[in-house]
Order: sequence, then C-alpha cells, then structure tokens
Amino acid sequence: MKTLIENARSGKITPLIKTVAKKENISQKILAKLIAEGKVVIPANSGRDILTPCGIGKSLQVKINANLGTSPDKSNLKDEIKKLKTAIQFGADTVMDLSVGGDIKKVQKYLLKHSSIPLGTVPIYEATIHATKKYGSFLKMTRDDILDVLTSQAKNGVDFFTIHSGVTKKTLQSLKQSPRLMGIVSRGGAITASWITKNKKENPLFEYFDDVIQIAKKYDITLSLGDGLRPGAISDATDKSQIEELKLLGFLAKKALRAGVQVMIEGPGHVPINQIQKNIELQKRYCNEAPFYVLGPLVTDSGMGYDHITAAIGSSIAAYHGADFICFVTPAEHVKLPDLEDIKLGVIASRIAAHSADLAKGNKTAWAKDTAISKARKKRNWIKQIEMSLDPHKIKQERAASKPKTTDVCTMCGEFCSMKLMDSLKI
Amino acid sequence: MKTLIENARSGKITPLIKTVAKKENISQKILAKLIAEGKVVIPANSGRDILTPCGIGKSLQVKINANLGTSPDKSNLKDEIKKLKTAIQFGADTVMDLSVGGDIKKVQKYLLKHSSIPLGTVPIYEATIHATKKYGSFLKMTRDDILDVLTSQAKNGVDFFTIHSGVTKKTLQSLKQSPRLMGIVSRGGAITASWITKNKKENPLFEYFDDVIQIAKKYDITLSLGDGLRPGAISDATDKSQIEELKLLGFLAKKALRAGVQVMIEGPGHVPINQIQKNIELQKRYCNEAPFYVLGPLVTDSGMGYDHITAAIGSSIAAYHGADFICFVTPAEHVKLPDLEDIKLGVIASRIAAHSADLAKGNKTAWAKDTAISKARKKRNWIKQIEMSLDPHKIKQERAASKPKTTDVCTMCGEFCSMKLMDSLKI
Repeated sequence: MKTLIENARSGKITPLIKTVAKKENISQKILAKLIAEGKVVIPANSGRDILTPCGIGKSLQVKINANLGTSPDKSNLKDEIKKLKTAIQFGADTVMDLSVGGDIKKVQKYLLKHSSIPLGTVPIYEATIHATKKYGSFLKMTRDDILDVLTSQAKNGVDFFTIHSGVTKKTLQSLKQSPRLMGIVSRGGAITASWITKNKKENPLFEYFDDVIQIAKKYDITLSLGDGLRPGAISDATDKSQIEELKLLGFLAKKALRAGVQVMIEGPGHVPINQIQKNIELQKRYCNEAPFYVLGPLVTDSGMGYDHITAAIGSSIAAYHGADFICFVTPAEHVKLPDLEDIKLGVIASRIAAHSADLAKGNKTAWAKDTAISKARKKRNWIKQIEMSLDPHKIKQERAASKPKTTDVCTMCGEFCSMKLMDSLKI
Repeated sequence: MKTLIENARSGKITPLIKTVAKKENISQKILAKLIAEGKVVIPANSGRDILTPCGIGKSLQVKINANLGTSPDKSNLKDEIKKLKTAIQFGADTVMDLSVGGDIKKVQKYLLKHSSIPLGTVPIYEATIHATKKYGSFLKMTRDDILDVLTSQAKNGVDFFTIHSGVTKKTLQSLKQSPRLMGIVSRGGAITASWITKNKKENPLFEYFDDVIQIAKKYDITLSLGDGLRPGAISDATDKSQIEELKLLGFLAKKALRAGVQVMIEGPGHVPINQIQKNIELQKRYCNEAPFYVLGPLVTDSGMGYDHITAAIGSSIAAYHGADFICFVTPAEHVKLPDLEDIKLGVIASRIAAHSADLAKGNKTAWAKDTAISKARKKRNWIKQIEMSLDPHKIKQERAASKPKTTDVCTMCGEFCSMKLMDSLKI
C-alpha cells in the first residue's frame, strides 16, 4: 500500500487530503504538493480510522498537542481516559501517550480506541519499561527490543512516533565539549544518552534508522524527530549541541522523506524571546521546511507552577515566525504529573498561542472568529460571547457569581460600561 | 519646591534617585540624566513617603501595575485592602485605584495609607461620580469640578494620574471618519467622548492641560497620558484614530516635560502580534522616548476568561521591543470585576511577561535569577526552587498532594527523571 506522501506525489487525492483541505480552506492540489514536498504532514496510521484528522505544516493553521500518560508514581487508566476527553474538549488537535508507569500497553490501547484525534508515542519509553522488567535495567535493552516495540505500537495504530535519533556518540561528544548548565532535560534523550554511554555503543535509533523508516512506512506512521538535546535552561539555548543535533535531524528527515515517510522535527525547550525567531529560521533552513513541532519554548526558567503561561508566550512567538505545531505545557511542568485541571489549562493556553499566531499571520478563519466575538461584545450579547469563548462553563459560572444590577453589562464598570456609553453617541 | 525632573536637571541626586539607582544597579548620574530627558519617571507624590518606590523607563527593568478599585456593583473597603496586599505580595511595582463605586474617597485614602508602592488614579472617575451625585448626570460636570478632584487627590498623596487629554473634538472627528468595529473601549475615553459630544465643548483636560500641569507640578505627580482611543479589537489596532491620539499625547508630553513634570504615555489595547513592534516604535518616535505604559496588549479578542494569558503574550513582546511598564490584565477582563484570585493571577502573568522581556534584553539581575533556579533544578533542590518560584505556597501544596516515591524527583518522570539519569553520567 502506498503512503500518503507516495499518493500525493503521484497526484492522487486521498480522502485524508480531501478532509484536511476542506477543513483548512486550501486547495486539494496545493495541499498534496505540500505533503509531497514534506512541508505538511497528516499523522494517520494506515490501520486506524481517525474521526478528526489534522494537517500540520506550511500554510495551515497552527496545531496543538496535549501530552497524556502515566508515570511510575501515578498510573490510572480511568484518569487517562478523562484526560483524553478533556484535551479533546478544549481543543487539542493531537495527543501523545507518554506513559511510563503501570500497564502501559493497556493504557495505549485504550487511548487509541477512544481518541478521535491522532495519537503519538515515544516508543523508547515502552522499550525502557520492558527492558527494566526483563533484564532489571533499561541499559540492557537491545536493538531488537526497541524495534519490536515500534512494530507492536505500529500494529496497534499509533499515528506518530517521537524518535530520538539525534542523540548519538557524536552529538554527545559535542555536549561534552561545550558543557551546559542543565545538560540533557529530555526524558528520551537522557535514556538514550545513558544507554550509549554505559554500553559504549551507537544509538540504535540512529544506527538502524533505515529499519525505523521501514516500520513507519509499512503503517504510514509520521516520524517526529525528537530533540533529545533540547536546551532545558535559557542559558543553554541555541548552543552548539542543540544546533549539531538539529542538523543531524535535518539529514535524517531527508532520508525519511525520500522513502515516502512523513516527518516533522521537534524543537526547544527553554529559549529567551530574542532567540526564538532565529531558532525557527535555523530549523526551516536545516530541515528543508519540514513541519516544526515546538515544546514551548519556555521564555524563562522561573515559571514553575505557571509554565503554561511562559510556554504560551514562547509558542505564540515561535508559531508567528513559522513553527507549525505546539506541544502544550501545563502548570504542572517542573512540579508533578499533570492532573485534569492542568491538562485543561495547558490546552487552553496553547490554543491561545496557536490562535494568536494564526491572527498575526492573517489567517481568515481566525480573524472571522475574533470579529464575531468583538461584534457580540459590542452588542453586549453575553450568550454569544460566552458560547464562542474558550471555556463557556467557567465564564457562565463566574457571571452568575458576579451579577451586575443592569444585566447587559458586567461588574467591572456597571453603568459606566464604555460599550453602553458609546451606544448613545453617534460615533 | 523643585520637582524630581528639575532636581535631576540641576544635577542634584535626590534620595529617590539614589534608591532607584541602587535597586536597578545603574549609576546615579545616568539615571538623573534619563529623568531629566523624560525617558525615566519615578512616580512619587512629594507629599507622600513611598516605602518601595520604582523607576520606569529606558535602561530599567520592566515594571508592572495592578488595578484595584470598586465598581457600582461591588464596593467593599476590606476587599480592596486585601487586593492591595495580594498585588504587592506577588510582585506589583505600582497599583492604580480605579474605584467608581461606593465611598471612593474613603477607599482612596485607605489604599494610599496602606500602599508601600506608588499609587495612581484616573481622576475623571471621581469627578464623574461626584457630578452624578451633584447634578444627576456626569455630563453636567464642569472644568472646575474636574480640576478640584485633581487638586484634592494630589493633596491626598496620589503618585500618578491617568489623564485622557487625547480624546478631543478633533480626535473624535477622526474616529467618525474612520469607523471601527469596537469604537471606544476605554472607560475614561467613553466618559470624555460622551461629555464632549453631549456638551459640544472641548475636553477640559485638553483645553486646560496647563492647569493640569500646574497641579501635577505642585505635588510632583507623574502624568500618565491615557489612550482613550485605544483599539478594543484587533481589527481596530494601529488605526488612524489611535495614531492621531498618540501624536497628540506626544505633543502634550513635551509640554509637561518642559514644565518639569514627569510624564508617561499609555498604549494599546488589542493588537495582533505582528503589529506590536510597530506600535512601540511609533510611540517612542512620536513621544520622544517617554516611558510607555501598555495595557496588555491582548493579542486576540477571544481570550475571555483567560486574558491574563493573551495579555502576557502581548506585553512580553511589547516590553521586549521597548515598552517600559505593563498594566496587568486579569482572567476577569471582559467578564467581571476581578476578585482576589484574579488579582493574583493577573500580577503573576504580568511578572512573567516583564521578566521574560528583561531576560531577552540581557538584564543581568533577571539572568542571575534564572541561572539560580536552573542550578537548583539540576541539583533537584526542591526547597530552593520553590522558595524562588512565583507562588511558593501553591507549589508546596501541589508537591505535597502529588508525592513521588523517591523524594528528589517529581511525579512527572519518577525514576526516569532526566536530571537524575544524567547525574550518573559524566557528560
């Protein structure tokens, strides 16, 4: 069976292309061309039917991902299903299952069954858990252990894989030569770096990247090349190791693309505002305009407890400058595994970032939404304003708890509502 | 008695200049020069002792303001004192009392008594309330009514006044000629526009601006020239009326500066990300680099319930490009009068914006803070990380409610903590 890229290259407009073109208000032909060139991906395992697929990349609206998943300390299947529903309700375009605790196979299958949107994983996590059980240490996992997990997850229907192929003997050497404040802060990156260093062997996901491509190709899985060396402090941002890895990811992306496998690139991390535009430009240049999936970036290290805000700042700027896909960050970042409320706040903050970047880039759908809300506000049409808001339930409750004497205004200004005052003037 | 500007011009280093220079780690001479040129202000009524004064403007750290005050629907003195304490606790540099409900004189006096930081007002609000009581309508207030309020507030010790002198017959004409989606959304702007239109007279705060200057001068009050015509929807951003008013404010700022009165300029409003830099550049050009006090800007109209986030995005970008002073926006914006929790979230979001801009501009104090937090994170020193965080109480509670089995990590990754894994490697 042909992959989406192969179909796009041969000019075939598949149902997925039709659906996404319609949703994005873009011509099917142009979309197919962008897919063929590797500038847009539509993550969708060929063995799974996704109710609400999405396109990610050039000329499309910015998309957002919500991370779900258990940890060694917290693993409850029901919680994960609730988190999935919350993420979808508040507007996540995709989710990732990052489970590393409990019965992770079961969680993965359940999430896949219940997810109406694309679902990604980081297969090295499952391989790590299996090896820890099988050998007593993840350091003992083999190439086959890893590839077996990829195949099994592919069969289960996972739509995109984060693969840390950029953490290699060479890039770790680069890290040693140019030390950092925070070293490696990526969980997959640290696992891989530990494996390479303790075993004195090359990263199997780099050495056998062609096998990874073959598995991805068979199930039409999108590869998301992970930035295991992403900066975890603003003072580490845009350093030698990060850029070395980025170049390597660009090289691997070309390989995948040539094979007809969709690919995107993951990006930082912690980056001060003044370096964000440069980061996006470098990624676009080194990775041939492959879709850029940013993890924030967080614009300060000191947002603990409020990192959904530090990430919303960074990701809105990143997306304005060309990042295509925003991984949410929740208020729980640097503190704990996110709970339901964290998931909600993370999704909402990312939605704001994505939407504000779409506005800044002149996206018509985004502008139509803001115009409609402002018109309702001008008319003091509270029902419509609330209906179109990010969180109607919360705002309804708040209005009910803070009732103005005159019902068409709010308790901020009461009778001195500027909208109301202006109504009586002919300006 | 000489004003701060007059002292600075004559080379006298006053105690205020000493305090601020020390806090900002800048030479007293340079600071005095910036004050003399009108590029930095230190809002401080000569009749009031401020425990924690602050400088606002060029070469200084970005400052933030929190709005307090009653409304016709909600007015409780105790609530306002609690809000003041919360604002100061979470890092507001100044507060404004925007009361328009209840016994506003009493609230103002209480807040002035309890505020360790500079306090500003919008005197037209008090004049509006008085006139409504005295004549049955604020439209009947006179020039003297307005100037009397200024004098009385000045005597009480108010440190800075927002004055909407830019809403004039001419700028309203401009608004009529280039209609907007949202018209006027500034409360002071709408009150002034109503007064001008119904009375067919010029705005007294424009016509008698020299009197305003004289009152300000007598008490060394800083004028904050309000943008009554600020855009209230992104589709109104950077339009003719906004720019006309900005130019007028620049002209008035020069007048105040010449008279030895400190002055800053207020700015938008709702502005899409792609127009923020331009807005700052225009302000700096038209207003001779007077400190720029931004109200957000909100980067989308659709953030209702979460506008502390839409504002944090806008104000961090604005401050990075040169805005000096950020007015907080709370989650209650467009919904209701903010409560205690809203004040807290608004201050925290603005602090993040100000700090991330300081980092992006290379401010050493800001970098030292992030470096210290990252070092504590690397060492998994939770006590220090939490101590240095924006909201230690919240994070302590969350850690306690989500306890990891191994106490040096968190429940996000548990034993797979990247910091911990990396500890055992020599990278």
